[in-house]
Amino acid sequence: MNSIDIIGYVAAFLTTSAFIPQAWLTWRRKRAEGVSLGMYCIMVAGTVGWLIYGIMLGAWPIIVANVISLSLSAFILIMKLIYK
Amino acid sequence: MNSIDIIGYVAAFLTTSAFIPQAWLTWRRKRAEGVSLGMYCIMVAGTVGWLIYGIMLGAWPIIVANVISLSLSAFILIMKLIYK
Repeated sequence: MNSIDIIGYVAAFLTTSAFIPQAWLTWRRKRAEGVSLGMYCIMVAGTVGWLIYGIMLGAWPIIVANVISLSLSAFILIMKLIYK
Repeated sequence: MNSIDIIGYVAAFLTTSAFIPQAWLTWRRKRAEGVSLGMYCIMVAGTVGWLIYGIMLGAWPIIVANVISLSLSAFILIMKLIYK
């Protein structure tokens, strides 16, 4: 694995795991009035798109990263719908 | 451009533009107590990583998408620091 690949994997790890602190904060507060419904609707749609793209290419790093991003975004979206 | 490329571009457009409604909501409310500081710190670091990756590969779609994502994430992070 060359240094460019390593930077790509670190970047993918960061932009995927970034949703964890937001999910945790919203779960803990049981309030989501400052969380944008539009953001998480679009993010869920976008990660579904990336997942289809990864599956069509057979690109496992894209598939794995977007299964995680999709799960976290969908969880935040569901909390937004429940907690308002 | 084949259908796989089109899905990739649509996905990139969605996951990039998803930050716009969050930036707009936080700007309008002038409050950010429900927005995770950790999320936007990690997201800024991750998009900087993607930007370096895109520059090293000379991949313009990655560069353009991540300049936009980085700008929006940094804007939300600054609002979080100001509005608390």
